[in-house]
Amino acid sequence: MNDESGFQHNENVVAELEKDLRYISAIVKQKGRELLVDYAITPPQFIGLQYLFEDGDMTIGELSNKMFLACSTTTDLIDRMEKKELVERVKDPKDRRVVRIHLLNKGEIIINEVIKKRQEYLHAVLNDFSEQEVMILKDSLAKLHREMKKE
Amino acid sequence: MNDESGFQHNENVVAELEKDLRYISAIVKQKGRELLVDYAITPPQFIGLQYLFEDGDMTIGELSNKMFLACSTTTDLIDRMEKKELVERVKDPKDRRVVRIHLLNKGEIIINEVIKKRQEYLHAVLNDFSEQEVMILKDSLAKLHREMKKE
Repeated sequence: MNDESGFQHNENVVAELEKDLRYISAIVKQKGRELLVDYAITPPQFIGLQYLFEDGDMTIGELSNKMFLACSTTTDLIDRMEKKELVERVKDPKDRRVVRIHLLNKGEIIINEVIKKRQEYLHAVLNDFSEQEVMILKDSLAKLHREMKKE
Repeated sequence: MNDESGFQHNENVVAELEKDLRYISAIVKQKGRELLVDYAITPPQFIGLQYLFEDGDMTIGELSNKMFLACSTTTDLIDRMEKKELVERVKDPKDRRVVRIHLLNKGEIIINEVIKKRQEYLHAVLNDFSEQEVMILKDSLAKLHREMKKE
């Protein structure tokens, strides 16, 4: 990380950026928690549903990697979500030893509603942004996300 | 949240923004966890230290509000951090019924090191950003943070 090119940016600017990012992440996390209260699902359950919603069916191992969790932890998580009928385990028709987690209708409804509420919250936050400022923010965050995925 | 002005922005743009923000927050959280492993402190302990570092001494009640925690949970957190000599309880000399949490040298060293590592990580992420792009990102995030605090 201490390579030459890494120091092209002013340290104070990066320090400010890190601080804002740290606080924004904390607010996003807290706001997300508040929105989940109505749905009787926990934050890790939401994150699991989110990946199944966006990336489709996957094995426990694949989901564990995405969530940075041990497979045993993900198995517990899926067990609880299966009881709530949010997801189901489906055997691969081509190789019945492979089991994938599939998002059920009830899980999809919840994830859609929660994401919609998060969008509404963000809409309200962006009230004092001009259309151009929103586009700049969107492009900046998209690039930041792409670069973070590379690291 | 559904007031007229709240709908000035394109819904697809807000949807993309929400998604990037959600994923960035997850990465920041995960990266933060990884950085803490070396310091034997938990993420809530880091957040507690962070507030004491940035906002100075405060009561359990004040810290609970900032962290969105019940006072009993914060008390447990402070008990554990006091045992590790990261913080101490200090009586207000003017009103000895008031007890404030004070960051100790050891806690300050840890928080400084963790924040420094987070800045180094961000430096590396920003490697492919031009100086101008970093300034634009910084200003956009600072505004987003200000607006989120208002909400």
